[in-house]
Amino acid sequence: MMIEKPVRVGLVGFGTVGSGVARLLLDNADSIQARTGVRLELACVVDVDTASPRPVNLPDGLLTNDLHRLLNDESISIGIELVGGTTIAKDIQLAMLAAGKHVVTANKALLAEHGPALFAAARSAGKCIAFEASCAGGIPIVSVLRSGLAANHISAIYGILNGTCNYILSNMTAKHEDFQSALSQAQQKGYAEADPTLDINGSDTAHKLAILGSLAFGYEIPLDAIYVEGIEQISVDDIRCGLEMGYVIKLLAIGVKRDHKISLRVHPCFIHEDSLLAQVNGPFNAISVFGHAVGNTMYYGRGAGMMPTASAVVADIIEIALGNSPKIFSNLQLRPVAQARQAMEDIGQITSRFYMRVMAKDQPGVVATYGKILGDHGISISGALQHEGKGPYNTVPVIITTHPTLQANMTAALQELCKTNVVSGEPACIRIIDIPEDHD
Amino acid sequence: MMIEKPVRVGLVGFGTVGSGVARLLLDNADSIQARTGVRLELACVVDVDTASPRPVNLPDGLLTNDLHRLLNDESISIGIELVGGTTIAKDIQLAMLAAGKHVVTANKALLAEHGPALFAAARSAGKCIAFEASCAGGIPIVSVLRSGLAANHISAIYGILNGTCNYILSNMTAKHEDFQSALSQAQQKGYAEADPTLDINGSDTAHKLAILGSLAFGYEIPLDAIYVEGIEQISVDDIRCGLEMGYVIKLLAIGVKRDHKISLRVHPCFIHEDSLLAQVNGPFNAISVFGHAVGNTMYYGRGAGMMPTASAVVADIIEIALGNSPKIFSNLQLRPVAQARQAMEDIGQITSRFYMRVMAKDQPGVVATYGKILGDHGISISGALQHEGKGPYNTVPVIITTHPTLQANMTAALQELCKTNVVSGEPACIRIIDIPEDHD
Repeated sequence: MMIEKPVRVGLVGFGTVGSGVARLLLDNADSIQARTGVRLELACVVDVDTASPRPVNLPDGLLTNDLHRLLNDESISIGIELVGGTTIAKDIQLAMLAAGKHVVTANKALLAEHGPALFAAARSAGKCIAFEASCAGGIPIVSVLRSGLAANHISAIYGILNGTCNYILSNMTAKHEDFQSALSQAQQKGYAEADPTLDINGSDTAHKLAILGSLAFGYEIPLDAIYVEGIEQISVDDIRCGLEMGYVIKLLAIGVKRDHKISLRVHPCFIHEDSLLAQVNGPFNAISVFGHAVGNTMYYGRGAGMMPTASAVVADIIEIALGNSPKIFSNLQLRPVAQARQAMEDIGQITSRFYMRVMAKDQPGVVATYGKILGDHGISISGALQHEGKGPYNTVPVIITTHPTLQANMTAALQELCKTNVVSGEPACIRIIDIPEDHD
Repeated sequence: MMIEKPVRVGLVGFGTVGSGVARLLLDNADSIQARTGVRLELACVVDVDTASPRPVNLPDGLLTNDLHRLLNDESISIGIELVGGTTIAKDIQLAMLAAGKHVVTANKALLAEHGPALFAAARSAGKCIAFEASCAGGIPIVSVLRSGLAANHISAIYGILNGTCNYILSNMTAKHEDFQSALSQAQQKGYAEADPTLDINGSDTAHKLAILGSLAFGYEIPLDAIYVEGIEQISVDDIRCGLEMGYVIKLLAIGVKRDHKISLRVHPCFIHEDSLLAQVNGPFNAISVFGHAVGNTMYYGRGAGMMPTASAVVADIIEIALGNSPKIFSNLQLRPVAQARQAMEDIGQITSRFYMRVMAKDQPGVVATYGKILGDHGISISGALQHEGKGPYNTVPVIITTHPTLQANMTAALQELCKTNVVSGEPACIRIIDIPEDHD
């Protein structure tokens, strides 16, 4: 069955990714048709800026600043929203749905914040919203969770979902650079924005986790219920000490389901240097997904950038043109936010191992003091590292790793420790995540 | 849109994977429906052996030795062939297609040998053949190549596609075991058949490469045009010397497209220890796919086993039930075998780096002799390793790595080297594959 009539798509947002999408649609229409039977045709490109040069040459007359040209063209069946942000972009998506067009988007922030409302609008319009490009760029992880692993109960996902953070942490690890200089380099390389806040504070990763977690566990995930820590406080000294103990630092998005409780969180972690995720460096993303039938699987690739993201956008367009996405979308059932809140575990109730560094005063009784405080809170020590030699103000860095313990106990112990006279300054505390091994 | 009428499926072949599929269909029908909207119903299970116990309890009356019960039941729309082999299995698939049923299969050997004929039969019956489970078990790599990366020109795939070989080579590497003892262990663990020939000689990997290569490059791939070497000749000494030079041994399926020529081959390779594929150990599989837009992506998971393979079979059933697979299948256009033969590069014409070990006689003039022979064939030496101390019969192992050179030149040089009086026995020669890095 050849689909001979071209499927006409309209693009809103002619920035980096938009230029990549235009390039793929203009240059690759023949090969896409040969591979899939679908003929795609770029009908118009809408942007407020119609003057600046872009890295793609549009045929004359395609570029416009009038959204209505897209909305009113009944021959256009798919609208691509690549504007970004959560205000105008939302209006544009709603307008496209109201005009009877399927929507393709890379807008993770919008979906994480207003996904349920947008999905409801799409349902009542009988259209779909496709969002492969919103998570992990070119890695087809949305499709994997919705289709490839559809026969599985997903028990856990562990994702490196932000290329900026991974680039910074990789460089801090490999080159012993401090956070600020690694960040500057990421900015020079184009891996970090001029204002990198949303990347480095974990927000961007949380947006993606809200989307992937909803697909993995079947709930509408309220963004404010995801626990988030960024990487701003990570010191190169802790990275080095972790390495010495066999751990590599990563900013992980973690979704774990256990006994009907779901834990969703984003924070820096130490993971074992032998785990596959520990090998994912630079701007790359990767997601480990555990299914009850399939076991551990992992998906790796570029998480951002013009062409990888465009690759995902065009894959979505093809799936819509084939009629696949609308069917999958209309069958997707997510339990509502209220149920998600009930199922979601408070960060205090999660169990984790911890890496802790205190700057201890170099005096007798220090080990006894913090040993007693940890013991009193039921925290058992797994490993310890204390190099000879002094830190500032006559202190020595003392590093301890713990056996699994309740987060609430760890938090209480740290607070108590800070009140004693044996430590100086704030202790560093980084969770150690033992990614389950899928053994023989 | 809820699909309320159950989709009834019939299963032929009640072995290990068949039992896993039955278990998923019986235990997970509710969760699959919640996730996808599709209600699946196992209608019958056909096997010549209806007596032996299986690791799943079928409801009474489902098991039969009569294939016609499946074929004649018009309420069954999907037939699953898990018989294996290339004779009866082919008849069963053709009969199911003739009876108007879509076919789901894990049978890589059958598709690699008779894919074009079976696909043609499916087309003329207006049905599809779905085969996610035929390659890399639970990893949804078929779906990735057909849909997730559909906007890309694929330039290369590098796959670890046989868990038996990877388990053996991993153990030889980590535990310095010889081939026979690693093989015995794989058999004890259930990772190798009693007759492991098709796994260790590379045939099974070649079957999978024929399938993945056809999807990646758009040709019907003739199995006999794939160059194949197995792992039987790999010695633990070469593994150790490779490690010392920074390389890890893997049996790779390689598909590379360059200037309209396609190279498809299966052979042991040394790959750099830092590459992600080098970290894939034990029975796991992984495939690196390079797309022109997406760059390097990798997919990792269990390549075989009851539940991982069943996970892929059921994913295919769901995609058929949703109507997605038939559409994708009918649009899949592969250029015919004759064109593939023209495009495929002869192994002699490929360029590679090489690791070579000769047992050189411990006498003057040896380096001059092999240096001259390599030089005469235009082969440039990249690295060398010669430990002091002797091998058997007054020989010393001399290891050389080369810069990229034509396979034909290397073969000629080795033949000439063997004719001289400076080396003893057969030289070992293992290709070094520099998997392209996807750089910043």
